[in-house]
Amino acid sequence: MTSLLLADVRPWGGDAVDVTIIDGLISDLSPAGNSTDSSTETEQRIDGRGLLALPGFVNAHAHVDKSWWGQPWVSYGGQPTTQGRIAHERAERDKYGIPSVDGAKAVLREFLRHGTTATRTHVDVDLGVELRGIANVLEAAAALGGAIDVEIVAFPQDGVLRRPGVLDLLDKAAAEGATSIGGLDPATIDRDPVGQLDALFEIAARRGVGIDLHLHDHGDLGAFQYELIAERTVQAGLQGKVNVSHGFALGELAPARQSEMVDQLGEAGISWTTVAPATSAPLPFREMRAAGVPIGLGTDGIRDLWSPYGDGDLLQIARGFARLHGLRTDEDLTYAVELATTYGASFVHRENHGLTVGARADIVLLDAENAPDVLVRAPRREYVIAGGQVVVRDGELQV
Amino acid sequence: MTSLLLADVRPWGGDAVDVTIIDGLISDLSPAGNSTDSSTETEQRIDGRGLLALPGFVNAHAHVDKSWWGQPWVSYGGQPTTQGRIAHERAERDKYGIPSVDGAKAVLREFLRHGTTATRTHVDVDLGVELRGIANVLEAAAALGGAIDVEIVAFPQDGVLRRPGVLDLLDKAAAEGATSIGGLDPATIDRDPVGQLDALFEIAARRGVGIDLHLHDHGDLGAFQYELIAERTVQAGLQGKVNVSHGFALGELAPARQSEMVDQLGEAGISWTTVAPATSAPLPFREMRAAGVPIGLGTDGIRDLWSPYGDGDLLQIARGFARLHGLRTDEDLTYAVELATTYGASFVHRENHGLTVGARADIVLLDAENAPDVLVRAPRREYVIAGGQVVVRDGELQV
Repeated sequence: MTSLLLADVRPWGGDAVDVTIIDGLISDLSPAGNSTDSSTETEQRIDGRGLLALPGFVNAHAHVDKSWWGQPWVSYGGQPTTQGRIAHERAERDKYGIPSVDGAKAVLREFLRHGTTATRTHVDVDLGVELRGIANVLEAAAALGGAIDVEIVAFPQDGVLRRPGVLDLLDKAAAEGATSIGGLDPATIDRDPVGQLDALFEIAARRGVGIDLHLHDHGDLGAFQYELIAERTVQAGLQGKVNVSHGFALGELAPARQSEMVDQLGEAGISWTTVAPATSAPLPFREMRAAGVPIGLGTDGIRDLWSPYGDGDLLQIARGFARLHGLRTDEDLTYAVELATTYGASFVHRENHGLTVGARADIVLLDAENAPDVLVRAPRREYVIAGGQVVVRDGELQV
Repeated sequence: MTSLLLADVRPWGGDAVDVTIIDGLISDLSPAGNSTDSSTETEQRIDGRGLLALPGFVNAHAHVDKSWWGQPWVSYGGQPTTQGRIAHERAERDKYGIPSVDGAKAVLREFLRHGTTATRTHVDVDLGVELRGIANVLEAAAALGGAIDVEIVAFPQDGVLRRPGVLDLLDKAAAEGATSIGGLDPATIDRDPVGQLDALFEIAARRGVGIDLHLHDHGDLGAFQYELIAERTVQAGLQGKVNVSHGFALGELAPARQSEMVDQLGEAGISWTTVAPATSAPLPFREMRAAGVPIGLGTDGIRDLWSPYGDGDLLQIARGFARLHGLRTDEDLTYAVELATTYGASFVHRENHGLTVGARADIVLLDAENAPDVLVRAPRREYVIAGGQVVVRDGELQV
């Protein structure tokens, strides 16, 4: 039995408590100074100095396999379209040793530094790398001792139907442990929305895995594909197992159409992940919440051949979400932080994620007054506890 | 004579140099290790460890008088319209002791912490505070020993014509040293665009000061006011002395109209400041550059009764600008950093601002590879030198 006492921390900025962690789980929360006297048994004690405590962040949409993080600066090239970026990445990635175990580890370490203790990552599966990227990511996660929980989406970045053989790779990935299979712009990349979706749903239903689709298409073309997805989700009985990533069109629809669409998504049990780009249309997040459409936040890729942006800090994404949606009240600003933490849990299949007894001890300590203050300043992570392991101490990464 | 040797720093990420600073000015730049041997005379030496060096940042649009920075969290209230915010601020500011010397000083210190060594600040002038806010800001700047250069815009936040007596206050402020007088939505706040503009231009021409107008109006109503301003600027011979702040409409115009407008602004010598809000239309910044319309970046107010956002970091604003405008190449990412530094100089009337001999020694050191890396990570400011004074050392504020 290993144990850790996290003394004098303020969950969500509330009253100070002592948190007892045993074997990687939160075993007790007591008012500060009143924790059960287990000093003789406690192996380690951290003085939380009244720091604000949040549950570990959940990055619900990442690409940890494709970054050049840690390498010398790579200038952006290629064409700024989806197909242009796909082609550029396939042409250049070998030069930078992408994918690799070290590359994935570098990204996961940055996630931990910023307080992310669980992530759903899309990992490229194509005719070039086949399933090697997935193996690299799993090896990187293992090398970090499980500090960060990694859930895999086998992601056909280069297309599905237009690359014969990719469906077999997705099927194999699903058989070997990927939690979901991905998809990508069925209309504009594969030029066959029904064909791609039918093929993905067939695998998902047969293998009992989820589906997580990158959808960049705008307006009515985007919306039409949401309808196709919702119809197939209900038909296949995959409610609660299908996610749309990006889904820019949803924010662009006229109010009546948008409202119908949100209801259809809710009825089909579809969830939504966003990286809240500055130039995207705001999501109807209040209506989505009311309709039971879970929303998760992700960083997307960081420092890769798609974009030079990103540092792995999910709080920056939460702040971007808040600004994009014009959030200002304490309740709304707190909601944006919750999106980065509590509400992310379902995207990594956690039933118990939070500062509660029995949850995995994923805890982030920040020098902040309250959750809105955390959001608007995104201050340094003073301590990060991941599965009971101290991975950041006084702002310095320990892994 | 006081002197400081800043050894082994990389201007804009280039080759390492030693920077000699004498009496607050940069007196020499030599390849690292080859600086003139003046060790017996040098009072202070800082080992730059190869850190990247940038000129001090210039915050071209701030409100340092109206923040509650440093006070316990103030929940957002009021209505999210310009008039709603004006009314809310006037009703609540006394409760938080706004404006005050301490309040202004708290904001200026945050600016210094983040590398801003010069700012143009709008300071509320209205029938309630009269010129007290300006006096507070000047006293705060003096208390910081001139580390941060502060240029004042006497800003009629509560309106001009609709508040009889405000014009006299602006005239008095201009007489007493304000560099510019401000204006605010001549159409939608004063309900008399021609009347407000004529009155402001009369004062500016007579007192020899500039004009800096907050314009929030959208579309054609915004554009019409830009035309009125450009016409009056030329008529009054105030080319180079008039600035539009915000100016959201410019990005919203149809291409042909926008192009004509940019030309008209260029011919009238009008400059533009933006805080690059996530939900605004991108500016035609390349066309503005070609037409000779200077662009400056500002933080706007931080933590005030208008908005809980903001931490005074101009690099965050530069990154917001870059993302809003879809910048990705090294050249463009570097341009965004230049907007925060070099290109800001004209907004605080500096002819020589940069890492050059003779310039005021305003230098920011960051642990970064190059300017694009600075932009996308906005890392901690390791050292900030302001007018030759070390105001940040190892990330810690010294003033």
